[in-house]
Amino acid sequence: MATIRDVAKVAGVSVATVSRVLNENGYVHEDTRKRVETAMEELNYSPNEVARSLYKKKSKLIGLLLPDITNPFFPQLARGVEDEIQKEGFRLLFGNSDEQPEKELDYIHTFVQNNVVGIISATNDRSDTNYKDLSIPVVFLDQTSKDYPSVYGDGREGGRTAAKEMVKRGSKRITILKGPAHIQPAQDRFQGALEYLSESNVDFYVMGTTSFAFEEAKKWAKELFETYPDTDGVLASNDIVATAVLHEALRLGKSIPKEVQIIGFDDIPQSSLLFPSLSTMRQPAYEMGKEAACLLIKLMRKEYVEQNHVEMPVTFIERETTREVEVNE
Amino acid sequence: MATIRDVAKVAGVSVATVSRVLNENGYVHEDTRKRVETAMEELNYSPNEVARSLYKKKSKLIGLLLPDITNPFFPQLARGVEDEIQKEGFRLLFGNSDEQPEKELDYIHTFVQNNVVGIISATNDRSDTNYKDLSIPVVFLDQTSKDYPSVYGDGREGGRTAAKEMVKRGSKRITILKGPAHIQPAQDRFQGALEYLSESNVDFYVMGTTSFAFEEAKKWAKELFETYPDTDGVLASNDIVATAVLHEALRLGKSIPKEVQIIGFDDIPQSSLLFPSLSTMRQPAYEMGKEAACLLIKLMRKEYVEQNHVEMPVTFIERETTREVEVNE
Repeated sequence: MATIRDVAKVAGVSVATVSRVLNENGYVHEDTRKRVETAMEELNYSPNEVARSLYKKKSKLIGLLLPDITNPFFPQLARGVEDEIQKEGFRLLFGNSDEQPEKELDYIHTFVQNNVVGIISATNDRSDTNYKDLSIPVVFLDQTSKDYPSVYGDGREGGRTAAKEMVKRGSKRITILKGPAHIQPAQDRFQGALEYLSESNVDFYVMGTTSFAFEEAKKWAKELFETYPDTDGVLASNDIVATAVLHEALRLGKSIPKEVQIIGFDDIPQSSLLFPSLSTMRQPAYEMGKEAACLLIKLMRKEYVEQNHVEMPVTFIERETTREVEVNE
Repeated sequence: MATIRDVAKVAGVSVATVSRVLNENGYVHEDTRKRVETAMEELNYSPNEVARSLYKKKSKLIGLLLPDITNPFFPQLARGVEDEIQKEGFRLLFGNSDEQPEKELDYIHTFVQNNVVGIISATNDRSDTNYKDLSIPVVFLDQTSKDYPSVYGDGREGGRTAAKEMVKRGSKRITILKGPAHIQPAQDRFQGALEYLSESNVDFYVMGTTSFAFEEAKKWAKELFETYPDTDGVLASNDIVATAVLHEALRLGKSIPKEVQIIGFDDIPQSSLLFPSLSTMRQPAYEMGKEAACLLIKLMRKEYVEQNHVEMPVTFIERETTREVEVNE
């Protein structure tokens, strides 16, 4: 493998000059720069990134912290981040926090030890304390944050729209599944739905739920139809919970969407594969990942940032668990 | 933040001594080592990993290359790798190749530039050329390889078992969906199914397919029931394709599993969420990821490795798209 000395020799310059070209610091004449770059190309020279990162106190690494990549919402998010940073020559250091503060802290710590130049965090820690002492930019993803730049779906408007679409399609006795209290995005969508239904002329029932896990959701789905057997519309806290409700309704022999309409939240890939396929509120996960990466790169480069808090639109995806709009209304 | 100088001062030793303790080279008296370690703990000193990796020509980074994290088989795989390496203090550098050789090469290149100590690759490149010149251990995951250590599901036996379970449950006119020709694991499972059906007393029909994408699979599903309307069992090349077949069968008003049985391959998380839920051959994705990580770590540490090629068992998961075994048989 070619060394910096080989490059200097072929270009007919000193090692210090090659180093100045590499690190883009100090004055180098344009012709000299070209000679050095040609020599690098000829020799297929690639600088050791670790040595460079130590010298410049900078790397090409970005840390991404997710709650859990096996939750079907997150692969799209991660892919959006990766596609965007890859274009700019950055690479992804990646970890799952499992929503455990110690694990999160441990990852932040080792991200810093590896000289990452920025961090994107999609964990649900509301305290933000883990991020206070960092000297590198941090962007929160799928999270609102007063103190940090952040990119998130407009949950409140999404919740309102879900409720509105369901009422528009004729449901009169609607159930809202509230979603875990410690997850802010879940509460935002709940509030939005609550607001809309409170202003509407329909009955509604709110059921508290504590997680997004499918096995638990099955129990709530059962309880829902036992407690409130004549409900004719369910606003679920996410698509996993909506899927459990759909299964239970089908098991009870209910006709979907004729007797019960169901609207989920997220539009994870499997929602279109269900039968009947799930109507839901789409969060643009891939685009959110890309947006967070763009914002982080701007912050790292100290470029002008117009909007530190990017709220992405959440849109209604009409599939087979909702009826067509009644034309006469 | 504490520096190496602070540690030396508190421990009452020279910087060189602290360095010897850190890097585990050169003689250090046991008492001195303890004093240095206590000082590090007191000061909460953490060495800069980049500086250390440069010095030792080693990092704590492992590169993971996947075809595409948004394919629902891979998040489990990635999670298995991460959980295992995280226990040992390693961190994951992560990229998606999209099965493009240039992108794969580019990632391998930057992994090396960042001094990764090992690479796990789950891409489908059969040439292996990209990996030839590397001086670090490489483990192939979800791939068989003659030249490299690898971890993979036993596709042939999986294909045989799928065929056997379907015949055992009474299907007489079975369709095998062959799967993409360039993906070896797909061909292994096809061969296994073919072997078993060839030895059996049932009719069967083989249909060529060229991808695992859901939109394309929908077309094949349509074609399948048009070409071979009385098929009463479908062995799909993976769960995505099986899902498309299930939808089409339901649309045609076929009773599942009474009129048509369906068996998928992989057991991706969504398969249990379908209605009816999908019977399938489970590949232990999470365990395969863990196994690949274990193997890589052993190779990196030059520990004894009994088995360079780890074939993981693939098991039948009985759900609702297959009938119960007929007792009289």
